[in-house]
Amino acid sequence: MRITALAGGVGGARFLRGLRRHLAQHPTPGSSDEPVSLTVIGNTGDDITLFGLRVCPDIDTLLYTLGGGVHEEQGWGRADETHSLSDELAALGAEPQWFTLGDKDFATHVYRSQLLAQGVPLSQVVARLSERWGLGQQGVTLLPMTDTPVETHVVIDDGGDQRAIHFQEWWVRHRAAVPAKRFVVAGLDRATAGPGVLEAIREADVVLLPPSNPVVSIGIILGVPGVRDALRGTRAPVVGVSPLIDGRPVRGHADVCLQAIGVAATSEAVAGLYADFLDAWLVSPDDPMQSRPGLHVEHRPLLMGSLDAAADLAGAALARATRLGPGRTTA
Amino acid sequence: MRITALAGGVGGARFLRGLRRHLAQHPTPGSSDEPVSLTVIGNTGDDITLFGLRVCPDIDTLLYTLGGGVHEEQGWGRADETHSLSDELAALGAEPQWFTLGDKDFATHVYRSQLLAQGVPLSQVVARLSERWGLGQQGVTLLPMTDTPVETHVVIDDGGDQRAIHFQEWWVRHRAAVPAKRFVVAGLDRATAGPGVLEAIREADVVLLPPSNPVVSIGIILGVPGVRDALRGTRAPVVGVSPLIDGRPVRGHADVCLQAIGVAATSEAVAGLYADFLDAWLVSPDDPMQSRPGLHVEHRPLLMGSLDAAADLAGAALARATRLGPGRTTA
Repeated sequence: MRITALAGGVGGARFLRGLRRHLAQHPTPGSSDEPVSLTVIGNTGDDITLFGLRVCPDIDTLLYTLGGGVHEEQGWGRADETHSLSDELAALGAEPQWFTLGDKDFATHVYRSQLLAQGVPLSQVVARLSERWGLGQQGVTLLPMTDTPVETHVVIDDGGDQRAIHFQEWWVRHRAAVPAKRFVVAGLDRATAGPGVLEAIREADVVLLPPSNPVVSIGIILGVPGVRDALRGTRAPVVGVSPLIDGRPVRGHADVCLQAIGVAATSEAVAGLYADFLDAWLVSPDDPMQSRPGLHVEHRPLLMGSLDAAADLAGAALARATRLGPGRTTA
Repeated sequence: MRITALAGGVGGARFLRGLRRHLAQHPTPGSSDEPVSLTVIGNTGDDITLFGLRVCPDIDTLLYTLGGGVHEEQGWGRADETHSLSDELAALGAEPQWFTLGDKDFATHVYRSQLLAQGVPLSQVVARLSERWGLGQQGVTLLPMTDTPVETHVVIDDGGDQRAIHFQEWWVRHRAAVPAKRFVVAGLDRATAGPGVLEAIREADVVLLPPSNPVVSIGIILGVPGVRDALRGTRAPVVGVSPLIDGRPVRGHADVCLQAIGVAATSEAVAGLYADFLDAWLVSPDDPMQSRPGLHVEHRPLLMGSLDAAADLAGAALARATRLGPGRTTA
């Protein structure tokens, strides 16, 4: 069974870690006896170059979380981390100082930047990083959505003047508190889907959308030329998990991002963004949304407060997909 | 009074720290009442690119030592250093693993590499690093010998075949134990002396040569086009300190380097490398070398076992220069 998931950072990583836990406890989902493989298509839209080094926040969160090296409370970065290098860069007056980079984390960026400078495509860099984190041994393949450098910028209103800042500056430095006019993903229209990305969607048995940000994570991946068509065309059922509970994200700023693109912060409205390919949608128990022709809505607890809770949620999404089966004829 | 010194790494840095101590205790050397300025011309011949980052071992040793941040016992690198980044790079299988880089030290290399990639010349990078380390407040200006990237390679005999390896690989990894056939400084013949370097020699009141390696430190600086002519032409007395005691270096592998270029490991032979511009030469008490026309030889303890000992040695070199006076007519 081939499972393909599109994922952003923390929420996506925790969901997928839950999925892996679920699969470890239920090794043969559905009626299939074949081994389960999980291909994760990671968002690179929030990548940023800091201090001359290429940083891929979502990809690294996926690597660290699935590889067992993540800072658990924080949800991103490395466990048992130190910050000597950042402190010294601050002593040198180097900017920016609003993006936290730990010493171990820096090694990832130094390693990646060196390889990229040598002409190694990002997908191959991610493959090497995946090896270090033992993803292959877990049956997990992590693919960046594209090898083309893309960067999300946020157009903000700066005292009457509109100007664009990097997404990370808006998200991390301003905590999404500066009103966003729109998001511009530089390079996305000319980007090519990364090696294996479109095939992973087309040839999947199941496609899952974790509760990642629908605008700046899933939404960016959907903007990679070919990805949306692949989702429309795949025979695999596409099952998603709403990122909203009572109109608010569990973490992050999905509601603010939705507002910026003029979409209501409801599970219903987010499902509307995926309407052309979504088959089933998991929403929280109190969510007013109901099933309709072409979209099966399932109510169940969405909070991933523990690995077991994440495993339950991922298991429910997978079970729903298995019930839907291939061919996308069921709703 | 303008003092200019040519310096390699640890030995040069310790000598210059001693000189600064001496000047702090004797603020008006000779008969001059004007403030003393010290310009240090640092060797960049052993620079190396590691993990895509530009590392300048000698320059950094000078910065850390004069700035009070050096690892005292080691003589290079930062005090209270950690190695998370290196450990993580090793976990990633990144090479080389024979060059020790601490987390704080990495910040210097990240900062420098970012600026160099932006087109900032090395001399300006060093000026910014000097600011962080408070060199200006001490009346010290550190100038890299050139802004042109140069790299010393060592031709070794590898089982009958000659091949070239980077100087740092020979020095650090092999501890200079692999017989060196010769040194090749890539880029040196086309290098241009860094901004202010030739002027600092020509316009100096005193030129000092600390007990740095005569082949791979001082020798490299002398190879920068124009430097040797400036030393020949300056009116300032040039006073050097032998790097050898009883034919052996106090630290490092000067004797092995001399052997590789076919020069005897004696103070006399090293002075011969500087014969066209050297006015006075400090050698150890037991050294058989004697003064001769054109070269005043002074016997005195050369060991810099403490800051006070380094201050005494630097003070002796400076006093000798002051006695010689300008015009280079005394021997």
